[in-house]
Amino acid sequence: MKAYIQTHRERFFSELFSLLRIPSVSAKPEHRPDMERCADRLRGLLLDAGADEAAVYGTAGNPVVFGSKAVPGAEKTVLVYGHYDVQPPEPLEKWRTDPFEPVIAADPATGESAVYARGANDDKGQLFMHLKAFEFLVRTGALKHNVKFIFEGEEEIGSPSLPAWVADHADLLKADVILVSDTTMISDKVPSINCGMRGLAYLEVTVTGPDKDLHSGHYGGAVANPVNVLCEMVASLHDADGRVAIPGFYDDVVELSAADRALLARAPFDLEEYKAFLDIREVRGEKGYTTLERTGIRPCLDVCGIWGGYTGTGAKTVLPSTAHAKISMRLVPDQRSAVITDLFERHFRSIAPPEVKVEVQRCEGGDGFLIPLSSPAYQAASKAMAEVYGIEPVPSRGGGSIAILAEMQRILGIDPLLMGFGLERDTIHSPNESFLLRQLFAGMESIALFYQYY
Amino acid sequence: MKAYIQTHRERFFSELFSLLRIPSVSAKPEHRPDMERCADRLRGLLLDAGADEAAVYGTAGNPVVFGSKAVPGAEKTVLVYGHYDVQPPEPLEKWRTDPFEPVIAADPATGESAVYARGANDDKGQLFMHLKAFEFLVRTGALKHNVKFIFEGEEEIGSPSLPAWVADHADLLKADVILVSDTTMISDKVPSINCGMRGLAYLEVTVTGPDKDLHSGHYGGAVANPVNVLCEMVASLHDADGRVAIPGFYDDVVELSAADRALLARAPFDLEEYKAFLDIREVRGEKGYTTLERTGIRPCLDVCGIWGGYTGTGAKTVLPSTAHAKISMRLVPDQRSAVITDLFERHFRSIAPPEVKVEVQRCEGGDGFLIPLSSPAYQAASKAMAEVYGIEPVPSRGGGSIAILAEMQRILGIDPLLMGFGLERDTIHSPNESFLLRQLFAGMESIALFYQYY
Repeated sequence: MKAYIQTHRERFFSELFSLLRIPSVSAKPEHRPDMERCADRLRGLLLDAGADEAAVYGTAGNPVVFGSKAVPGAEKTVLVYGHYDVQPPEPLEKWRTDPFEPVIAADPATGESAVYARGANDDKGQLFMHLKAFEFLVRTGALKHNVKFIFEGEEEIGSPSLPAWVADHADLLKADVILVSDTTMISDKVPSINCGMRGLAYLEVTVTGPDKDLHSGHYGGAVANPVNVLCEMVASLHDADGRVAIPGFYDDVVELSAADRALLARAPFDLEEYKAFLDIREVRGEKGYTTLERTGIRPCLDVCGIWGGYTGTGAKTVLPSTAHAKISMRLVPDQRSAVITDLFERHFRSIAPPEVKVEVQRCEGGDGFLIPLSSPAYQAASKAMAEVYGIEPVPSRGGGSIAILAEMQRILGIDPLLMGFGLERDTIHSPNESFLLRQLFAGMESIALFYQYY
Repeated sequence: MKAYIQTHRERFFSELFSLLRIPSVSAKPEHRPDMERCADRLRGLLLDAGADEAAVYGTAGNPVVFGSKAVPGAEKTVLVYGHYDVQPPEPLEKWRTDPFEPVIAADPATGESAVYARGANDDKGQLFMHLKAFEFLVRTGALKHNVKFIFEGEEEIGSPSLPAWVADHADLLKADVILVSDTTMISDKVPSINCGMRGLAYLEVTVTGPDKDLHSGHYGGAVANPVNVLCEMVASLHDADGRVAIPGFYDDVVELSAADRALLARAPFDLEEYKAFLDIREVRGEKGYTTLERTGIRPCLDVCGIWGGYTGTGAKTVLPSTAHAKISMRLVPDQRSAVITDLFERHFRSIAPPEVKVEVQRCEGGDGFLIPLSSPAYQAASKAMAEVYGIEPVPSRGGGSIAILAEMQRILGIDPLLMGFGLERDTIHSPNESFLLRQLFAGMESIALFYQYY
């Protein structure tokens, strides 16, 4: 595949850029037309790459793109999953270049070439690797498996429409493995394969004090300030050991055996490098666990956004009427998102003092999952990446969530396999998201080899 | 004065509205031209009302308007202070009418007529009462004191430029009393005169965790979230008794005698009405004090604004890089704003955990003050209001702050007198600020009588 990449390099970039230029932000309704454009563009790329057929399917939300190629006599079918929606680009002022005008530039730190754009990695860049590996196998006549592609446009908002669509098209989606590149490797020195992902529960809370903003002088000290109250409530959600202080939160959390923890500990990790990369003096997390364990095998609670009162320039003296927070909880495989969401809502209402009113709005959620290392797909992926990277990949636990994969696993009865080629340095979901060309191409090679060894 | 008001009522409104239509928001630099326009308009109104001279003076910030009239043989000089700047109108969506297009409308609750606009009360409406009472006295030949007017454009941002200007123009400002209408009466049933105001210390804090926004899945649980940390820090600023938990915060707070507390308790106050007006089930404040005491004779700490992370629509899963809060502390007369600001800054830095960086920015501040009830000015005001309202006004302590008055008291050696005609229902600093016509006119009458009895 190396030679093929060299020959078609420029075309690859122009095709990838055509996807990255479309601001397919699923969190913002006003981008709906961009979702349609992006889905249609993917349909075109699928046919160009060699799919027998490709179509855009309407859903209750953003469209689903499905394409496939049948190989006579093929014994196995690979279902490739990816998503074409992206996170909002904000804060815009922190981008060095336009998030939707992709550029190839040198990494300021290492000088290595990378594509910079929102979605460069997550997930347009990574799903593009599958399109090109597929194209290579088709054009060189090396494709020996049936291949199906499903690209959705709602992953970043919890895939609300896909489960129903998948259930309605279960026959169409029949396959032996769900192949996904939407995760990161632990290090570019040592490749890794995700053998598990965390689940997610996401809520928005509103605390209301007085029914109007008040003069902080006339009322300050006598009326509960909803911002202060929200801060007290949020602060109480963790205990002194960094554990989430919601009753029942850990009930379904399975403690890993020493052996399993040792296996995961094989993943290379340099705490000093990690802290330097984030420019922090200390890490912080649940007592008794390492940093990798805190993101890999333990649940957590984070405020993703908070706002209330006057946030403009200058000093407005106001006692606000309301305060708001968006709260996300990452869950381990045995925790059920729906259960945790209930626990949170009940607990949050229960700790609200009588001086305020509380609203809790459920935003999204999904369960985590685990993948057996013994599966043929995992073994094939491991062999492929070992060949490309010259070192055997280690199994890792991803801290992120791909809610829909657990759903598809349940609905279709097929295990996913996560061959992710992102790196920490790619800062997905953040300004200046990028994807190293080295990883983009290594991913294409690894995927092409996966088809050979699977 | 009653008859004079009836005769000139329509002109009064058109003059007042011409002031209210100018969006003189001092907190926002882009309104600088509006400040100039508003100052010039006031100069015109002063001359129209009968001032011998009126001029707009430049300062390091927004202009100061000064005007005066000398009365041959006058024994006393009254210095009228007011401010023509207003609070930002946000949140705009909560206004029933355009904040800068004044209307006279019926109070939705009582049906009484009121002027609705930002500044209708604070302070354009209240300073306008002085212009018209002055005009009446001049035109009817009843003015027996020299009168000077000083109107500033930076009160809502802490009057940063005025102290220097006042010091430079001390001779020009020589007077026997500083007469101010920029406060509220406790009730429209029983008039009150402010005999004290609280001081203010206002700061903005920024908590920084990682140097970039992070994927809350990849890092959540392992890296300190600055929003969670800010919430913990803010929550720790109050103890279980509702006292401010900053070491030394209460060192200079003078406990009032039982007699003084009893005198203040004479002010009429209905807790159920108060809660109903704010639509709250319970009040909240420092243990051991009444609601009026909590705003009148006790200091407090409030978050006026908080923001961090993703606050748009939808569910963005991000671990933010920074979190911010605007924090105001209201101080009692013996607390020094500069001292408390130092205490806060030192304490806030000291409680920051090692996982984050903290910035503390000082925004504004000013000291509180007390006014002797025995002064001739207080007595004249009391007599005037008693005549207009048919009941003797009670002394009260205002919870708000007029930083500049303590400064002027110090620089010029003149006591201020606060004849405020605002009411709680006016919701100054909030949407739908208004001023009852009944109070607007009663204020004009009371002020005219003050000059007679002083």
